[in-house]
Amino acid sequence: KYIKLDIKEIPSGTQVYDWIIPKEWNINDAYVIDPKGNKIIDFKKSNLHIVSYSTPIRKKMKLKELKLHLYSLPDQPTLIPYKTSYYKEDWGFCISHNQLQTLEDGEYQVLIDSTLDAGYLTYGEFYLKGIKDDEVLISCNLGHPSLCNDNLSGVVLLTLLAKYLEKVALRYSYRFLFIPETIGTIAWLFQNEDNLSKIKHGLVAACVGDDGISTYKRSRQGNAEIDKIVIHVLKNSNTEYKVIDFFPYGGDERQFCSPGFNLPVGSLMKTPYGKFPEYHTSADNLEFVKKEYLGDSFSKFLSVVSIIEQNRKYTNLNPKCEPQLGKRGLYHMMGGKNDEAKQNDELALLWVLNLSDGLHSLFDIAERAGIEFYKIKAAADSLYQHGLLRLDD
Amino acid sequence: KYIKLDIKEIPSGTQVYDWIIPKEWNINDAYVIDPKGNKIIDFKKSNLHIVSYSTPIRKKMKLKELKLHLYSLPDQPTLIPYKTSYYKEDWGFCISHNQLQTLEDGEYQVLIDSTLDAGYLTYGEFYLKGIKDDEVLISCNLGHPSLCNDNLSGVVLLTLLAKYLEKVALRYSYRFLFIPETIGTIAWLFQNEDNLSKIKHGLVAACVGDDGISTYKRSRQGNAEIDKIVIHVLKNSNTEYKVIDFFPYGGDERQFCSPGFNLPVGSLMKTPYGKFPEYHTSADNLEFVKKEYLGDSFSKFLSVVSIIEQNRKYTNLNPKCEPQLGKRGLYHMMGGKNDEAKQNDELALLWVLNLSDGLHSLFDIAERAGIEFYKIKAAADSLYQHGLLRLDD
Amino acid sequence: KYIKLDIKEIPSGTQVYDWIIPKEWNINDAYVIDPKGNKIIDFKKSNLHIVSYSTPIRKKMKLKELKLHLYSLPDQPTLIPYKTSYYKEDWGFCISHNQLQTLEDGEYQVLIDSTLDAGYLTYGEFYLKGIKDDEVLISCNLGHPSLCNDNLSGVVLLTLLAKYLEKVALRYSYRFLFIPETIGTIAWLFQNEDNLSKIKHGLVAACVGDDGISTYKRSRQGNAEIDKIVIHVLKNSNTEYKVIDFFPYGGDERQFCSPGFNLPVGSLMKTPYGKFPEYHTSADNLEFVKKEYLGDSFSKFLSVVSIIEQNRKYTNLNPKCEPQLGKRGLYHMMGGKNDEAKQNDELALLWVLNLSDGLHSLFDIAERAGIEFYKIKAAADSLYQHGLLRLDD
Repeated sequence: KYIKLDIKEIPSGTQVYDWIIPKEWNINDAYVIDPKGNKIIDFKKSNLHIVSYSTPIRKKMKLKELKLHLYSLPDQPTLIPYKTSYYKEDWGFCISHNQLQTLEDGEYQVLIDSTLDAGYLTYGEFYLKGIKDDEVLISCNLGHPSLCNDNLSGVVLLTLLAKYLEKVALRYSYRFLFIPETIGTIAWLFQNEDNLSKIKHGLVAACVGDDGISTYKRSRQGNAEIDKIVIHVLKNSNTEYKVIDFFPYGGDERQFCSPGFNLPVGSLMKTPYGKFPEYHTSADNLEFVKKEYLGDSFSKFLSVVSIIEQNRKYTNLNPKCEPQLGKRGLYHMMGGKNDEAKQNDELALLWVLNLSDGLHSLFDIAERAGIEFYKIKAAADSLYQHGLLRLDD
Repeated sequence: KYIKLDIKEIPSGTQVYDWIIPKEWNINDAYVIDPKGNKIIDFKKSNLHIVSYSTPIRKKMKLKELKLHLYSLPDQPTLIPYKTSYYKEDWGFCISHNQLQTLEDGEYQVLIDSTLDAGYLTYGEFYLKGIKDDEVLISCNLGHPSLCNDNLSGVVLLTLLAKYLEKVALRYSYRFLFIPETIGTIAWLFQNEDNLSKIKHGLVAACVGDDGISTYKRSRQGNAEIDKIVIHVLKNSNTEYKVIDFFPYGGDERQFCSPGFNLPVGSLMKTPYGKFPEYHTSADNLEFVKKEYLGDSFSKFLSVVSIIEQNRKYTNLNPKCEPQLGKRGLYHMMGGKNDEAKQNDELALLWVLNLSDGLHSLFDIAERAGIEFYKIKAAADSLYQHGLLRLDD
Repeated sequence: KYIKLDIKEIPSGTQVYDWIIPKEWNINDAYVIDPKGNKIIDFKKSNLHIVSYSTPIRKKMKLKELKLHLYSLPDQPTLIPYKTSYYKEDWGFCISHNQLQTLEDGEYQVLIDSTLDAGYLTYGEFYLKGIKDDEVLISCNLGHPSLCNDNLSGVVLLTLLAKYLEKVALRYSYRFLFIPETIGTIAWLFQNEDNLSKIKHGLVAACVGDDGISTYKRSRQGNAEIDKIVIHVLKNSNTEYKVIDFFPYGGDERQFCSPGFNLPVGSLMKTPYGKFPEYHTSADNLEFVKKEYLGDSFSKFLSVVSIIEQNRKYTNLNPKCEPQLGKRGLYHMMGGKNDEAKQNDELALLWVLNLSDGLHSLFDIAERAGIEFYKIKAAADSLYQHGLLRLDD
């Protein structure tokens, strides 16, 4: 509705690397009726009640047999867990532990009206062409119906970011993926293998809407430009944050960072998967995710994009000694005791001149100087306007 | 008076890189007479009263107009500030804030009898030829009349160091610069560009006479030999010290370390410019700078020179296993429990043998061993006398 | 008695690099009889009483003259020191300081029935051939008769380790040296210079039986594979430990790590030489060294050998995305909240897949993942059995 997504479908049975696109699962209805005739579990009330990918069943059974297919969380007795059975044909229901304990002996009617047939894996892609063919890849997952932080928050963030960037002149091209975790991403990589070398920077947006601090998981490369840029943004955000090293677990960075690709793709989250108690339960809902947290993540993604876009490389045209900034009005006129804010502006000018030696990008200069990127950028713009820099890249 | 300085002059109007040597400013007299006829500001009492480079003026004016040209320090009301107006034609007086507040309305007579005409930029150079053409550059500034720590202390230190080294056989050649900050150094670099590759090590001596701890500002290269040597000296000085990274602000290291030269020049100070309250005020005087602080700086500069001079490279002529030190009287004779001081001397011998592999200078060995340079040097001398080392460099 | 040692002899007078094999010293008897006719010092009661390498003497002398040849420890008055005089012809006795103070004036009879004649330097070597010619060198010293931690503990450890490895199929070849310190090792290096390039890893076993924490002294290379492996073993041992940098003092690592060889040889100890009060005294005895401490050292040496043997390099045959572990039974079947132990096993599988890129050995993977080597090895075995890895080395 908000952006013109390119919807793509891959048929069941397609081989993608070591994997095969599975059958498509659809569900119409699912419930359990207790011995007294009450519909005690109802898919139509919450789709979390059904184990995803459950095979169809219509059967009467004793509580004992039914219980083998009921999942609950004893430690979080009021919550419904989220369960899947992608790679083993099985069926099941998820309920709160409190409800589980009220179930009485007797005969239960169980219905799952689902289909598991040849169909399609479906995903959405949105591409924004910039001046360069070089791409920035930003991806989120679709896999968890009814869960909000993991993953709806990522879907929302990408949609807003894509909508925002659509209106802006871009240097890099941007590719947004809305895709089922693991199998979807593997299929996408398989289909796009020839174009992967265009990806210069990438981020997975996962769990971006909770109240935790921002957490950045580095790419497998560990110190790629995207890693340094995200950390720069977090450091200058005046918010707490955490940086963790890459490990081959978690979200789709596992595929992007597999050794055959080793793409510079990190993951910017709030609280990582599995680290918040609401994770994979009915409590990961619209009350858990708040507008201000999602907004904070959004602004950090935007800052990252902003640095990627504005990170140019210049050469100082007066590399021998400083040029005379004073005669160009770039420098305070009176020697003596100095004003601190002015000094800081001048310092940014001097850093750009000192490090624009063909080896350092503006971002490198910001890092070396310990000055926020946008101040370095402003200094470079000013020097460039005065003919003191040559734009190289 | 103390050393035979080579005085050099560059005419006004000469282009040096992006800069032009300005007109020469001279001043005969300057004063302000109050409505009652009292000479309340008098250049002849303190040359700080006049803003350096003030244009001539002889005029009567109301206090309101005069005040636009009066500079004081509200936070340090008893001190006269130091002000310059090098790059904008203007005039002004500096007075204490206490005095400023006593001024009453009425008509004031203002006189500045100065000239701003074609002339010369003047600096002093002192060169000591050593065995090598390779140079050590040591520079100080002349720019601040009447201020003592910044820069008279540097002038005194260089004079004493030059006088001392004049009597010593030197391996390196030494060049001492007594030069106006910024424009002077830029002019010198311009005139000497072809010879800059001879500079192997360099130090700027600034603010070397106050009671602060020694502060070393690294060269732009960051880990040049001069950086490591100065830090070694400070570490072994049994005094507190501080090491700060290069930044393109401050003294003439800004020019020496501009990207077109990137010379290995650091700056060894006591309290850095701008970090002591007396900075650029009448309180930076002969009471603020003390002999013992200046002496401490002097001995550190001398230690740095001493390491530069004595840092040779040897090759161990018995690189396979240790040579038998015992038969040469270099090793304790009796096995068993050992004496610690002897052990340390022997350890220095063993480090020199172990690391004289063509890759390490004596200074490198001292650093790796964590032993003071002069002990490593003594060990090397002893091993060399016994024919166990070959001198490579 | 326990292993078939190859006993080797080198004649006195043989030149080995800068050294000459000295005369062979033998002793039959040595004693001192006091003025009352009591045998107050008797070599037959403790061979520590005689300064090793003492020249023969049979003489009556006053206490004053005798005292010039008596060694004691004033700070440890009950202990007999250990003394040698290898490189200076001299004689002497070692006694407790308490005993020294009871000696009364008068005439003493002194006898040392020793010989110092052309003979041999003797050492033992034990070689186990593995699949590769590449060698692991493990050495200990023989030089200190009657001292237990320094060196008998090393002799015991090597014997047990050699006996253990004799029964095992080995990839590397192992060479165990039982050799007099310094001169023995220098002679061995001289005789084996052509084969030293086979040594891929080496350890000196010294002071391995006391109650101190394990201490590892790095090789001169500093970050050789042996250094990383020993530190990995210590880190995963659940015991305290200490790692110290190489310095050219101590045991035979001094010769192995001389610059002409620079072999990857470290030293794994409990308390280092000279750092325990019993060092080089009669208190370094069978009560000081305990079975459990020696056993702890043994198990650490064995763990090091075990990693060296099992450290293979594989290539992931599905480097593009993860292979589907689920269909091979290597992965949990149900998505949702996960079990931590299972997750850790799966994490080891994923790390091996992610880093088996031709650049990382299993040990490198364990280090990068922060997972104990044997878990990484188990994961690799499992993946290899499922055809997911190719063995490269």
